[in-house]
Amino acid sequence: MARYAIGVDLGGTNLRAAAVDSSGKLIERLSGRTNLAAGRDAVVGDIVDSILRLRTACGDGGLAGIGVAVPGIIEMRRGIIRESPNLPGFNDFPVRDEIERRLQAPVHLENDANAAALGEKWVGAGRDVDDLVLLTLGTGIGGGIICQGKILHGSLGMAGELGHIQVVPHGNPCACGGHGCLEKHASATAVSLMARLMGLGDNLTSEEVYQLAVQGNSAAHVVFATMGRALGVALADLINIFDFPLYLLSGGALAAWDFFAPSMFEEVRRSSYVYRYSKPRIDKAELGTDAGLFGAACLPFMA
Amino acid sequence: MARYAIGVDLGGTNLRAAAVDSSGKLIERLSGRTNLAAGRDAVVGDIVDSILRLRTACGDGGLAGIGVAVPGIIEMRRGIIRESPNLPGFNDFPVRDEIERRLQAPVHLENDANAAALGEKWVGAGRDVDDLVLLTLGTGIGGGIICQGKILHGSLGMAGELGHIQVVPHGNPCACGGHGCLEKHASATAVSLMARLMGLGDNLTSEEVYQLAVQGNSAAHVVFATMGRALGVALADLINIFDFPLYLLSGGALAAWDFFAPSMFEEVRRSSYVYRYSKPRIDKAELGTDAGLFGAACLPFMA
Repeated sequence: MARYAIGVDLGGTNLRAAAVDSSGKLIERLSGRTNLAAGRDAVVGDIVDSILRLRTACGDGGLAGIGVAVPGIIEMRRGIIRESPNLPGFNDFPVRDEIERRLQAPVHLENDANAAALGEKWVGAGRDVDDLVLLTLGTGIGGGIICQGKILHGSLGMAGELGHIQVVPHGNPCACGGHGCLEKHASATAVSLMARLMGLGDNLTSEEVYQLAVQGNSAAHVVFATMGRALGVALADLINIFDFPLYLLSGGALAAWDFFAPSMFEEVRRSSYVYRYSKPRIDKAELGTDAGLFGAACLPFMA
Repeated sequence: MARYAIGVDLGGTNLRAAAVDSSGKLIERLSGRTNLAAGRDAVVGDIVDSILRLRTACGDGGLAGIGVAVPGIIEMRRGIIRESPNLPGFNDFPVRDEIERRLQAPVHLENDANAAALGEKWVGAGRDVDDLVLLTLGTGIGGGIICQGKILHGSLGMAGELGHIQVVPHGNPCACGGHGCLEKHASATAVSLMARLMGLGDNLTSEEVYQLAVQGNSAAHVVFATMGRALGVALADLINIFDFPLYLLSGGALAAWDFFAPSMFEEVRRSSYVYRYSKPRIDKAELGTDAGLFGAACLPFMA
């Protein structure tokens, strides 16, 4: 049978796994919840079970390898999650070695946003380019950089922490120690906070703020315009730094594209002269919540 | 004889050329002024003359190739200077083709800050790493990024425009169209402007502001502390984006290192948690004004 890889995307909420062939075609998939309440060992057990089930279904013979995407700051060489707000209990845990020990097989570990960027490059919105930057807009903001077809890792594997580009000096303080980080001004959390500060309601989700914008609420429009400007500042920096042909945004916030994109493009045009020369594409990612899963499955084929 | 390359570094003031062997050893060098008053044709003539003189001195046989570094925004594929404030008359000029036509030999064209970064990687402060970022602090601020041993070019060759990272939103307006660009807050020009605004004198050079700081002038100390914070914001962004092991600064401003470095490091430590994990080196470049020359000479060996 055809060669295939198994990819696992471990999130704070969902645990996804799939077998994908070398052309990026999905063969089989499994979806479940991440059972954090049961503890770290149980979660690792669920990952291993998913992999074993897919391997049994697809056969040992064609298995090219296994990739696992996890949220948080990864130390690549040691296969350790240094810090993961979404996976309590996994900090400083050698998750790669533990999965390998139980499977008796090698595993490629990767940060989830890096994996998502690779997934978009492989079978998504970036399939026609070799260089791209992905911003994942969620509760926080993650980033992944594909340079010459490969994930840009840096020394320890921590490259692409794009949610912490400073867009507002002396701005909103961030848990990272900085102030005015992109994710404090353009994430779903930031949208909720801005809505509260503007008197729209105390506990609105970003989705509810979006619904208010759809209904024509002008304060909600201002919230998304502000989010767009923050994204524009970060994108202008990234374009001046990389001069890449493609910058992708993903995450639930894409629904509000029409509300934040105008101020985002205005800021990019104003602040990046490389943008004005190079005319790169700034666009929506295509794979939605499957990007990290495909990227994880792509890892063994890249090795 | 040994293989060698000829490198030319064309600046707004100086024209440098050298023959360098494949191990990075200088064989022969020529230095002169860039005679902009005589016009573009004369400047190109001087470049070609330098190359011919070195080729005659070193012999045709071992010549590996020719590299030319120029200031400004380069379009790599077409070998064109799109925009160069320091070389009036060269905008949109196909300088590579013109040199090749007169020499009847192929030429590698490169942006001067990119070439300087490559030079530092080849025989300077970056010789022990594969990945580094260089910031050149002068009248403006340029940047060069070395990724896996090679210059990061981006789509058109405009990557590394690090002087236009936004460090102060709504800050000092910049000729690039943006506001609060790094070079408006940390270049020699910015130091002079800050000194004027602080009442130190109307037309002080950055060197004179530095002398005031040496004499203990507290306003001059504030100027350099402010410059350091701006550098720190940009470096924190770059470290969060790249997680590279080395970030180098070059240019005349290095003399004031002791005055700007403390606030620079303080800002980096505060704003970049990748810095706190990865502990990259932020240091002085080593090759001074020769970095671009060595980088230009390195280009043929990289091709």
